[in-house]
Amino acid sequence: MGLLIKNGTILTALDEIQGDIYCDGDTIAAVGGDLSDRKKTGDDVIDASGQVVFPGGIDPHTHFELPFMGTVSADDFADGTAAALAGGTTMIIDFAIPAVGGSLLDALSDWHAKAKKCVADFSFHMALTDPSDKVLGEIPLLVKEHGISSFKAFMAYKGAIGVDDEALIHFMQTVSKAGGLLWLHAENGDAILERQTRFIAEGKTGPEWHEPSRPAILEGEAVRRALTLAELYDAPIGFVHMSSRDAYQAYAEARVRGQEAYAETCPQYLVLDDSVYQKPNFESATYVMSPPIRPAGHSDWLWKGLINGLIHTIGTDHCPFRLEGQKTMGKDNFTQIPNGGPGVEHRIELMWHYGVGEGKIDRQRFVALTSTNAAKLYGMYPRKGAIRPGSDADIAILDPTASRTITAKTHHSKCDRSLYEGFELKGAVTHVVAGGRLQLVDGDLKAEQGAGRYIPRSARS
Amino acid sequence: MGLLIKNGTILTALDEIQGDIYCDGDTIAAVGGDLSDRKKTGDDVIDASGQVVFPGGIDPHTHFELPFMGTVSADDFADGTAAALAGGTTMIIDFAIPAVGGSLLDALSDWHAKAKKCVADFSFHMALTDPSDKVLGEIPLLVKEHGISSFKAFMAYKGAIGVDDEALIHFMQTVSKAGGLLWLHAENGDAILERQTRFIAEGKTGPEWHEPSRPAILEGEAVRRALTLAELYDAPIGFVHMSSRDAYQAYAEARVRGQEAYAETCPQYLVLDDSVYQKPNFESATYVMSPPIRPAGHSDWLWKGLINGLIHTIGTDHCPFRLEGQKTMGKDNFTQIPNGGPGVEHRIELMWHYGVGEGKIDRQRFVALTSTNAAKLYGMYPRKGAIRPGSDADIAILDPTASRTITAKTHHSKCDRSLYEGFELKGAVTHVVAGGRLQLVDGDLKAEQGAGRYIPRSARS
Amino acid sequence: MGLLIKNGTILTALDEIQGDIYCDGDTIAAVGGDLSDRKKTGDDVIDASGQVVFPGGIDPHTHFELPFMGTVSADDFADGTAAALAGGTTMIIDFAIPAVGGSLLDALSDWHAKAKKCVADFSFHMALTDPSDKVLGEIPLLVKEHGISSFKAFMAYKGAIGVDDEALIHFMQTVSKAGGLLWLHAENGDAILERQTRFIAEGKTGPEWHEPSRPAILEGEAVRRALTLAELYDAPIGFVHMSSRDAYQAYAEARVRGQEAYAETCPQYLVLDDSVYQKPNFESATYVMSPPIRPAGHSDWLWKGLINGLIHTIGTDHCPFRLEGQKTMGKDNFTQIPNGGPGVEHRIELMWHYGVGEGKIDRQRFVALTSTNAAKLYGMYPRKGAIRPGSDADIAILDPTASRTITAKTHHSKCDRSLYEGFELKGAVTHVVAGGRLQLVDGDLKAEQGAGRYIPRSARS
Amino acid sequence: MGLLIKNGTILTALDEIQGDIYCDGDTIAAVGGDLSDRKKTGDDVIDASGQVVFPGGIDPHTHFELPFMGTVSADDFADGTAAALAGGTTMIIDFAIPAVGGSLLDALSDWHAKAKKCVADFSFHMALTDPSDKVLGEIPLLVKEHGISSFKAFMAYKGAIGVDDEALIHFMQTVSKAGGLLWLHAENGDAILERQTRFIAEGKTGPEWHEPSRPAILEGEAVRRALTLAELYDAPIGFVHMSSRDAYQAYAEARVRGQEAYAETCPQYLVLDDSVYQKPNFESATYVMSPPIRPAGHSDWLWKGLINGLIHTIGTDHCPFRLEGQKTMGKDNFTQIPNGGPGVEHRIELMWHYGVGEGKIDRQRFVALTSTNAAKLYGMYPRKGAIRPGSDADIAILDPTASRTITAKTHHSKCDRSLYEGFELKGAVTHVVAGGRLQLVDGDLKAEQGAGRYIPRSARS
Repeated sequence: MGLLIKNGTILTALDEIQGDIYCDGDTIAAVGGDLSDRKKTGDDVIDASGQVVFPGGIDPHTHFELPFMGTVSADDFADGTAAALAGGTTMIIDFAIPAVGGSLLDALSDWHAKAKKCVADFSFHMALTDPSDKVLGEIPLLVKEHGISSFKAFMAYKGAIGVDDEALIHFMQTVSKAGGLLWLHAENGDAILERQTRFIAEGKTGPEWHEPSRPAILEGEAVRRALTLAELYDAPIGFVHMSSRDAYQAYAEARVRGQEAYAETCPQYLVLDDSVYQKPNFESATYVMSPPIRPAGHSDWLWKGLINGLIHTIGTDHCPFRLEGQKTMGKDNFTQIPNGGPGVEHRIELMWHYGVGEGKIDRQRFVALTSTNAAKLYGMYPRKGAIRPGSDADIAILDPTASRTITAKTHHSKCDRSLYEGFELKGAVTHVVAGGRLQLVDGDLKAEQGAGRYIPRSARS
Repeated sequence: MGLLIKNGTILTALDEIQGDIYCDGDTIAAVGGDLSDRKKTGDDVIDASGQVVFPGGIDPHTHFELPFMGTVSADDFADGTAAALAGGTTMIIDFAIPAVGGSLLDALSDWHAKAKKCVADFSFHMALTDPSDKVLGEIPLLVKEHGISSFKAFMAYKGAIGVDDEALIHFMQTVSKAGGLLWLHAENGDAILERQTRFIAEGKTGPEWHEPSRPAILEGEAVRRALTLAELYDAPIGFVHMSSRDAYQAYAEARVRGQEAYAETCPQYLVLDDSVYQKPNFESATYVMSPPIRPAGHSDWLWKGLINGLIHTIGTDHCPFRLEGQKTMGKDNFTQIPNGGPGVEHRIELMWHYGVGEGKIDRQRFVALTSTNAAKLYGMYPRKGAIRPGSDADIAILDPTASRTITAKTHHSKCDRSLYEGFELKGAVTHVVAGGRLQLVDGDLKAEQGAGRYIPRSARS
Repeated sequence: MGLLIKNGTILTALDEIQGDIYCDGDTIAAVGGDLSDRKKTGDDVIDASGQVVFPGGIDPHTHFELPFMGTVSADDFADGTAAALAGGTTMIIDFAIPAVGGSLLDALSDWHAKAKKCVADFSFHMALTDPSDKVLGEIPLLVKEHGISSFKAFMAYKGAIGVDDEALIHFMQTVSKAGGLLWLHAENGDAILERQTRFIAEGKTGPEWHEPSRPAILEGEAVRRALTLAELYDAPIGFVHMSSRDAYQAYAEARVRGQEAYAETCPQYLVLDDSVYQKPNFESATYVMSPPIRPAGHSDWLWKGLINGLIHTIGTDHCPFRLEGQKTMGKDNFTQIPNGGPGVEHRIELMWHYGVGEGKIDRQRFVALTSTNAAKLYGMYPRKGAIRPGSDADIAILDPTASRTITAKTHHSKCDRSLYEGFELKGAVTHVVAGGRLQLVDGDLKAEQGAGRYIPRSARS
Repeated sequence: MGLLIKNGTILTALDEIQGDIYCDGDTIAAVGGDLSDRKKTGDDVIDASGQVVFPGGIDPHTHFELPFMGTVSADDFADGTAAALAGGTTMIIDFAIPAVGGSLLDALSDWHAKAKKCVADFSFHMALTDPSDKVLGEIPLLVKEHGISSFKAFMAYKGAIGVDDEALIHFMQTVSKAGGLLWLHAENGDAILERQTRFIAEGKTGPEWHEPSRPAILEGEAVRRALTLAELYDAPIGFVHMSSRDAYQAYAEARVRGQEAYAETCPQYLVLDDSVYQKPNFESATYVMSPPIRPAGHSDWLWKGLINGLIHTIGTDHCPFRLEGQKTMGKDNFTQIPNGGPGVEHRIELMWHYGVGEGKIDRQRFVALTSTNAAKLYGMYPRKGAIRPGSDADIAILDPTASRTITAKTHHSKCDRSLYEGFELKGAVTHVVAGGRLQLVDGDLKAEQGAGRYIPRSARS
């Protein structure tokens, strides 16, 4: 079965091309010009006149069906990838998180089992929570035999999944040698633990204490420390969900000095500020995630990083917990509020509206940030992240003249709240093709459960 | 007439594509896959098996037939563009330099007259040497009516074509408002003048005093000052021929802070060091150019900038003066040695050998640095800098297994010396297509005088 | 004739000593303990119980009777030094400013003539406005034969007394070689001239445009540039009236790198902010001085410099112009408002109240900043700036429990406005001894015209 | 009994005074001028003509009779303070180091017992190795009741006495609140542990691997991290034995930003470089101490800090282990070499020779660095660190024309090696007065065992 997309403005990370795309089965067969003659009987045809057509988004940071802080994130892999498709994202990379002391291969099996329901393609990063010989030994296997070339460790969460510098060094050495890339959740876990403990003891129990319990200076510290160690051990390093000026500056200075490092940020750090923690009736708990939403001003610095190319990817850290019944577990103690929020559905439209629409980034950078850079960085290019013959037929179409009002009432996540409730955006995704399947048609989602495929990824060269 | 390039590895700033390119007349008609069926009778065919095929190079910094320091640079526009073609560069941007007090439009006419002989496509940057009302008034005309959207001012050369900060500010404001981009030769002209004068008075007259007369710290100072003014006046700014760590760091810090700024460097600053000024028999005069070749260590920092994407383009500042009869004008006084050297022919092979060959940059970055970035920055993309249907048929083919030994005996410049005499490089340009014309065939140059076209360029948006 | 000061808390830049001071004629004869037995018949006695006693202040930055911008500053040397004494300052250093093209020796004669009326000791810095051979030749004479070892050049005031970098370099070299110290008024004069001219053309004529016409970024730029040149030419350098974070940071970074540099700031930059330019009825013109009063926040950084010892001295840049008849010359054009304000009288009490009183600096630092550091830096220690046997009997006594309300109605300057109108300070100078003469007694000024002496100063060693 | 020192050049941290000092018992009674009439029968008289006389040195960093790494440092408190006196140091501050889990008060008792033999005055810093409630509770007692206002924690020595960031935060908060000052041994213990372990496993067992096992970058990291935490917790912080450019720069930047922080360095980091680790026959083990001796170049930056006043004190970290029988414990494993070396005897002469003699610092800074700053910072001024009436009669006299050749053959430490073997210094301490006792006479040491007194110190105000 084929699919013909007609008359769009095709955007890549390099170019803008007027014309058609023809998909043959799950693959792009031809790009550009008038491809009407490729159409076969029974092929679908989409008229993309006046619309932009670009590689399906890759969200490199989701947590579907994650057991965390005594509950489980509210979207399973079917819900989550459906929400992704609805917003133009055709692939996600979730985090397999082994129990401390557990096997990475076991964790991978568990995550594969959960991900069977995926309606869009998927892969996993592997979290490293324990520098045991067993774990260190499994890392090269994951890279070579299982298509897992990216890893993540936590400098926060001391006493739980967080690790100390010694473990970090072991991870850096082993992952780097295996041809993988180590990413970090960079916050100083020691100081956060002291602050959380003290705040609760002092009666500072509400969500408004979440950000002060882990201020930006502690993210900056952790980024700088990790970069120092990475420099000493000559290992590439990445930072997920960068949220603050402090982190950006430490990171950017290392990049200027020539260090190999990468960064991801998230829409919530680009378009929100910590006034959200003043919302009444515990609505503020919706925004309890780590790192927290920062005071106004920080986001300017993250935008600088997107503009000058030092920040490479946009993830969502989609990890939704319902306000009712989940967030309320921390009603009397903000440290017990499950950390995380939804977002996978709105990443692309938010970046279009605030990035392209407001003139901060051009349309090529938009494609790079939402798709191509992740594909390259994570070892999937040009299968993913590209519109060119031979690439997977993962395509999003956005109407720049359409509007979208975000609300939990209509979003596809199972979460009962949205981080962007009431936001009115210019530009809406109208059609989405995933693996050649037309999954969104004029805004109507037709996700096929289980149609998502596991995408093995290459090691770094 | 058509041209079919078969079986190459086609490199773009984003992709690597196996297959063919078909050129129809002066334009690329099709890219990728087997295009044998496009071949028409009489079409040329090149077998690019085992070779890389990429957009013809753009050298954004040449000075052909330039009257300077009492003589004229040794290559006219025919010589210079022929040398360019021989090395895979299919377009150059030369600098039209008006006399102080003179009209920009008059200078443009003069340069157009000289450039008629070009064998490859060309454009001009316009130098600004005098902040008169007349000059300021002509700037918008050049942008809107003459296709000249880039300008350059000199912070060095006090007392000649150099300008002070007040003039610089007027240029920044006027160029920015007109949609142009102002580039700077950034060195502190006051200090250089003092040093040159004093050195000569002290009997320090040889070429070995050239670098100390304009040390890196003075380039760093000028870059920092210009960026401060550009920030205050909210104007984008560029730096040509960046040569030192001092300059790079000042520039990179501003980029991290989010300032809009651009940088070019040159092969001579990447692969030489100031030991060249110790060559005997006045051979050292070959290397007298401004900025000078820096002490060892500086080049590492320029490479960092190429690797992390903060430096955008590679120019050559090709401005050759023969050692015999030209450089010797400064036999007894290094300040009288005509400043400049050849290089347009070797830019691409040097970047391939030292960049790609030594593993510093990947092949996409190589294309971006030698061609695509200049095309985008200077308002010619996708006509130039791209291999895609509709683009100009400007194509270079390089054999990564071939070798090249650089020597003035065989180079195409009229200069009697090479900056890279005896350098042995891995990777040699074998074929060059310029505007659809096959100008280099198996290393044999067949340049057609006058075939080069003036390429008008767009304003910034 | 002798003078016995009893029972004070004697403060030096190092120590706090309980006890007495005995002055014999114009010299301190003994310090500390009970010196009652030194008292001779007819000697004055001051009871300093409960008060602090410290070296008479040195204000290293005044402009008395200065012809400037078409008028003359409102205090002559008698007025100015009387105001100084009233506030505990027993010596001032004024600036002799030669006409462009004029002789330094002639300027020195002129200033000596004007300073004959001084009621307190004085010296001069010599301004350098013209790098002529004549001027460069006179510099060593001033140092060796005239006791003038400090100089000042202006990076602002382009087209008037300002100089370019080339002149600056000549001054640095000549002053450094002669054993003098060059100070700079550091603001980018080119940009200021452009902004002033443009603002007036745009109808921005009021005093509120003064600060935007010379923003902090231009002070930072000039400081950085001067330090770069000073580093290259291996010359020590100083910055007068540092007013901004930008300047402080550029300067402090150079100090950290080990560069020899010095800085002065003024009370107006420590305790005011640019809201003063919003005062109605042209009162805002009172605050038109250069550098201007900065936006809130800058002063914090200057205090940091005082606290950590990187800023050495407090001057006032006392250069008063009456609002009526003088400031009004610029009623319709802020660039015509004579630049400057009064302040010599309040320096010590302001530093006591805001520095010691608010706990920012200790009492030893207070002495160092108001007296001792200037004495050492300017080649007068231990004759000046010390309370020890053999030093000049220049002593101020301050009652920490007394209060002072500053107002132009009662201050001793001839200026009709005060920068600190209505300020209520804790701590008031009660007695002042200058050269052994008791000039202020319980707040009652008894200045003796002409009693001030010229204090020749040593070269740097 | 009295003591008259005649005709010296008396140096203080502020002044130079010609004349005499008269000591009455253990106290200075009079300073300056001709004090011959104070001499009583039986008083000692020292002729200090041509010599400099300054406050007896304070070495704020010694480890006498320290149980460490399976042995005990080779000088007991009698040996160590005798060596101190021989070199002009009249007071030391040693570190009481409680066992992990042990009581601070118990440790203090132990150290008091060991220190009874002191021949010079002494105090203790208290090490904090365990953030137990017991320890945190004892901190205020030490400050208020025991005269111990300075503390130290170790960021290195993971698994032994080192602490993590959480403990560090508890120490910062508690010490700061109690009016004490927390000092840090700042090196990243995690990375050092990994490196030591790995190096040994790789067969890198010799002393030449000591420096690479704990490179400067890890000291810089720890300093920066500690400063970040101290900023967040608004606590003053100090760094002992700063050894590297990395540490200095991180520290100096924080000082420029206005943070309250202090630093000590040691002569071995100022005058040695890591070529000492190339000495044959295990002599290199003499230099195994932590931090290690750094590569050439680092010391320049420490000197900058001494010159610009950002580094406050000079300690020796005197902790000698004999090469024979002690250092040899690590013959086959550098991590088993007891860390430390001698030095208390040579601190003052080294600072005179390399600081004053080589023109880097003036004589006032020399006094400040070797004595006065420590007295002020550690709460003992003006009893210690001053030459003024009422201060302790602790005085050193140095002959600038005399020479000293340092050798273990003649030094007073029990150590069989010197860090400065064969160094020839200009300037030698000839006489030392400690508590009014003449302990060194023309270079002849007459130390009285047990004459040293415990000096309680004040809390910070």
